[in-house]
Amino acid sequence: MNTHKEIKSDKIPELMRDIGARSKAASIILAEAKNSQKDMALAQAAICLRNSIKHILTENDKDLEYGREKGLDAAMLDRLKLDEKRIEAMAAGLETICTIPDPINKILEEWDRPNGLLLQRVSVPIGVIGMIYESRPNVTADAAALCIKSGNAVILRAGSECLHSAQAIAECLHQGLKIADLPADCVQLVPTRDRSAVGEMLTMTDFIDVIIPRGGKSLTKRIQDESRVPTLLHLDGNCHTYIHKAADLDIAKTVLLNAKMRRVGICGATESLLIDEEISEKFLPILADELIKAGCEIRGDKISQKLDSRIKQASEEDWYTEYLDAIISVKIVVNEAEAIAHINHYSSHHTDAIITTDISVARQFLREVNSSIVMHNTSTQFADGGEFGFGAEIGIATGKLHARGPVGAGQLTTYKYIVHGNGQVRP
Amino acid sequence: MNTHKEIKSDKIPELMRDIGARSKAASIILAEAKNSQKDMALAQAAICLRNSIKHILTENDKDLEYGREKGLDAAMLDRLKLDEKRIEAMAAGLETICTIPDPINKILEEWDRPNGLLLQRVSVPIGVIGMIYESRPNVTADAAALCIKSGNAVILRAGSECLHSAQAIAECLHQGLKIADLPADCVQLVPTRDRSAVGEMLTMTDFIDVIIPRGGKSLTKRIQDESRVPTLLHLDGNCHTYIHKAADLDIAKTVLLNAKMRRVGICGATESLLIDEEISEKFLPILADELIKAGCEIRGDKISQKLDSRIKQASEEDWYTEYLDAIISVKIVVNEAEAIAHINHYSSHHTDAIITTDISVARQFLREVNSSIVMHNTSTQFADGGEFGFGAEIGIATGKLHARGPVGAGQLTTYKYIVHGNGQVRP
Repeated sequence: MNTHKEIKSDKIPELMRDIGARSKAASIILAEAKNSQKDMALAQAAICLRNSIKHILTENDKDLEYGREKGLDAAMLDRLKLDEKRIEAMAAGLETICTIPDPINKILEEWDRPNGLLLQRVSVPIGVIGMIYESRPNVTADAAALCIKSGNAVILRAGSECLHSAQAIAECLHQGLKIADLPADCVQLVPTRDRSAVGEMLTMTDFIDVIIPRGGKSLTKRIQDESRVPTLLHLDGNCHTYIHKAADLDIAKTVLLNAKMRRVGICGATESLLIDEEISEKFLPILADELIKAGCEIRGDKISQKLDSRIKQASEEDWYTEYLDAIISVKIVVNEAEAIAHINHYSSHHTDAIITTDISVARQFLREVNSSIVMHNTSTQFADGGEFGFGAEIGIATGKLHARGPVGAGQLTTYKYIVHGNGQVRP
Repeated sequence: MNTHKEIKSDKIPELMRDIGARSKAASIILAEAKNSQKDMALAQAAICLRNSIKHILTENDKDLEYGREKGLDAAMLDRLKLDEKRIEAMAAGLETICTIPDPINKILEEWDRPNGLLLQRVSVPIGVIGMIYESRPNVTADAAALCIKSGNAVILRAGSECLHSAQAIAECLHQGLKIADLPADCVQLVPTRDRSAVGEMLTMTDFIDVIIPRGGKSLTKRIQDESRVPTLLHLDGNCHTYIHKAADLDIAKTVLLNAKMRRVGICGATESLLIDEEISEKFLPILADELIKAGCEIRGDKISQKLDSRIKQASEEDWYTEYLDAIISVKIVVNEAEAIAHINHYSSHHTDAIITTDISVARQFLREVNSSIVMHNTSTQFADGGEFGFGAEIGIATGKLHARGPVGAGQLTTYKYIVHGNGQVRP
């Protein structure tokens, strides 16, 4: 049963500005919080999650019912669904974030000037983060926890389908914050399904410092087009694995299979295989065997189709496509220069890998491929904040400014300069 | 004589996209350039500037004539005017930037993972920078040089009044680039005065990675409101100097005078003085003497007016105002908490300073004041890339993301992650 009472549309601007103002006020207190206090809030929220399984599942049932009424497909309902295991994973996630060193008040650089001034560049929280996500309720806990750890207040706009679940999870974060003597307003959930609330967030430059969307392309596109608040965007993950002629073929086979098929639905999954002409005749059919055996469809250029008749024809569109599915595009390239040029043209600049034993070609690839993450002899599926050692991530940024690659607590910080003098004046 | 031939409005979108595409192509080559090559381009451009004084001054005369026709005031004409000294300063500026260490390909962090992966975070150029400025022709050289040094191509949109001068300066940069065997397209000047060219730049997300405006409030505001390309904004410099009750009064006097009056028109100039009540009766009249002697008008709150009758009444508006003039606002505060709250409310988060001998109060101020630059016992006029040791700056960023404070060559970079493996796959 949907117990959510919708707020009148004409009240939304006022509601959102109130949330913004309270968030900003809370952010000032949170910015000064000790690491132990922030960790206590997270640890207590984890305890609350474990103690609230029944309540959370009841609320999640309401969302599932609402989702079914709305006609969500099976995949979306699965994303929406919580169970004991998923709630435990959320709680464990909060505890993992407790183990990260405090990203705040780190002296990033320090230097003296000839006039005796001492300059320090020190990490500080960004302030207020607006998180806009879709139907995964667990993002509520993950995003809030990373924001708390990095000293940022967060305004969470959950997908309308998961509002009840998100509310139940947010309540646990509030409880954790209260026990740690931090303002509950550090984590606020937008209490309406009205889409105009998103429009308000995107213009609240006086209260929100950065908007981070986490969801499908249409959400990200809307935010990119409309936001007046700076954004950290996670766009496509059209990732490439390039098998160079000097590749160790065992490594190439194992890594490619993992990069493509370990999980096909994550943004670090390889979507496109490039392979040097010189080894393609011998090696492509072996790779195709493995991929097809694993259930992968292959779409390739004309040359690859000649080498293996099971390969379907790729269109120009395929080179741009993030399938998020058991499909891979294949292109035969003359050499590393063509591979690099192809990747720089078609890649979404997320993660691209080369497999080779030739160190100088590897160096060229790592230098010249203009992506957030470039890899040598390993699987693109390692493009993940946890795998990077960040504890957790809020997404993978594919833009050029502020943060690129996995966005963990450390990336949710900015810096300020502290200048220590003893009476210096500028001549 | 204005020799500029205007391009038809309907040709502007095509023109701008062509500039964008050429810029992007050039940026790929420049990103791979050696530091010695970039330095050679700058050094040769400096030589060219010195050899082209006559030509540059002739072109500058055309701009001045155009400016007078347009009815520019004396201050704007002065900003527009070049002379031998100013051209020499530009050339010397390029040479200074040669002395900065290469900001590209620096390993910023490096760590191992338990699975044997080696991760590196490495500085790389941003790509293409769109620089939009007003009537100072020297920005052409400064901005282009910082972009070249940081491996970024730049599209320069000069103010319409300085187009001839900017063109003459840009030609010297082209000559430097050619001698260094780098594409002239690394530096492109928009060859039209049509304002729609700016509108095009602000939407060219496929070619331009960041827009940096340098000019007055109306320019910055337009860009903040309209740009679809991420921006690095330099907003107001409403800087504060707070004199705490435990201040060394000699330091306070000297530093305040410098902070306010050394140059009143720069963004790091102090615009507002806060002073603790406990010392205000004794000390405010002394400070007021010095300020008034130096030609400064003082606008204060009611208490300050009681202490010194020469102080005019400040309005609420004054606390927000960046005068850029010989005017200062004065507020008496009860203690550091009130000073910090006032600054966090009214400051533009550019640069704020405390004068005190009390280290623990200083620490609190430096931690709690949420500005790009916070200072202890020194002049806010040190808020400058050159004074920070950055060699030069393109502006002072007042936003929260990517770069805060002086933006030099180092801040015109981003990073990528390089992951070195030997066949690891993700479990």
